[in-house]
Amino acid sequence: MLLKSRIKYIQSLAHKKSRQEAGEFAVEGPKLMEEFLHAGPSQINVIYALEPWVEANKSLLKKIPQDQVQVISEQDLERISSLQTPNQVLGLVRKPANQTAPQLIEKPVLVLDTIQDPGNLGTMIRTADWFGLEHIVCSHGCADCFNPKVVQSTMGSILRVRISYTDLEPWIRTLGQVPVFATTLEGRNLFSMKPIEAGLILIGNESRGLDPALASLATEQVTIPRKGSAESLNAAVAAGIVLAVLCGE
Amino acid sequence: MLLKSRIKYIQSLAHKKSRQEAGEFAVEGPKLMEEFLHAGPSQINVIYALEPWVEANKSLLKKIPQDQVQVISEQDLERISSLQTPNQVLGLVRKPANQTAPQLIEKPVLVLDTIQDPGNLGTMIRTADWFGLEHIVCSHGCADCFNPKVVQSTMGSILRVRISYTDLEPWIRTLGQVPVFATTLEGRNLFSMKPIEAGLILIGNESRGLDPALASLATEQVTIPRKGSAESLNAAVAAGIVLAVLCGE
Repeated sequence: MLLKSRIKYIQSLAHKKSRQEAGEFAVEGPKLMEEFLHAGPSQINVIYALEPWVEANKSLLKKIPQDQVQVISEQDLERISSLQTPNQVLGLVRKPANQTAPQLIEKPVLVLDTIQDPGNLGTMIRTADWFGLEHIVCSHGCADCFNPKVVQSTMGSILRVRISYTDLEPWIRTLGQVPVFATTLEGRNLFSMKPIEAGLILIGNESRGLDPALASLATEQVTIPRKGSAESLNAAVAAGIVLAVLCGE
Repeated sequence: MLLKSRIKYIQSLAHKKSRQEAGEFAVEGPKLMEEFLHAGPSQINVIYALEPWVEANKSLLKKIPQDQVQVISEQDLERISSLQTPNQVLGLVRKPANQTAPQLIEKPVLVLDTIQDPGNLGTMIRTADWFGLEHIVCSHGCADCFNPKVVQSTMGSILRVRISYTDLEPWIRTLGQVPVFATTLEGRNLFSMKPIEAGLILIGNESRGLDPALASLATEQVTIPRKGSAESLNAAVAAGIVLAVLCGE
């Protein structure tokens, strides 16, 4: 059985401040946990799991020291899980230090301005990974990428994509001559664009769009043309379409 | 103050069975409610709102009989709301009868096989509306489009896009010579395709993908090529990219 204090501690990791103090975050469910065991076992601090999952993953679990795996009851899993339906396993994983934003832009980099919905941020990380991007740079106003909902919706891509948090405007100004594509409502038709070799792809906040100061740094403003009546697109869908056109082919 | 029985009734509309019996569903928040007042006031059965919202929307509220607007307290709004943060107004809106699936395909139609996540379904409805689609046909295994989370994430597009529920396979077989595009993992490169005039665009379940029986009805299988390492794309993002390429230009 887990100690009350331990349960409280794990629950506290739902909050950014606690994650920062503790230097770790939670990962849930067999699929995601198995992906961490495959790709980053040294980052795993501890795994709490139901017995059947531990039995079924014996060989995979050899990748980490045995005393880092603890069998717990369904009741305890329910207490520590942040999922609506707890799913067999929860691991605590070491949070990497904040990555410096890249200074040399030799590939497309996704740049996110105040993406507040954790599901949107996680989905964007997953999409960036699909299209081969290696780096995402977030404004400090974005959701924290170690928020449990972000981690879950990346479906493991958080292991592969480097994510930095920085002040976007000064950072972009230091880069010099780099193509900067901003997604706005009155830019060039996205579908007339060719895939890019390198550059920044700026996506703005869910309701306010891109900060005008950032949009003004764009070397090209692009727009997904509307044919129907919806007022806007979901931010993660818009990012997906822009990445598909600029980085997909 | 709202009667206990009334509060219970409104809460019950979170469940599909209750919505079907009652023939109505809930719409929340100023933006969505105002969109319904603009575009479909005759569908509104009743509006429960905080006083400041009613005051601010007096002229818009003239579109419906005065006795259909009820000022309630914040406490009551909290009780009837399905949002984490209740937002000023909740309306009950008449559920349209199930729309027959179209028999004449003169435009692109989005066809959804067992899309289970309400947020994904709502986002797909919104994206379809953006790209000018008028009709979505869902399998019976899809989330109910009047689920509160679906309604909220359509951002009003549920007012404009016709949504039918049917047995997909027999329906597609009755259509005869219609182009059917299926999104699968081993089809033709989506980015080599040209926009289509008409046809069905099939999107499959979040984890299992498209039912093989449905995929076998495709006249063309298409794939969003992967350049990185993510195992899959979010279903709503994948649908967005496919719609952008096939219906966007």
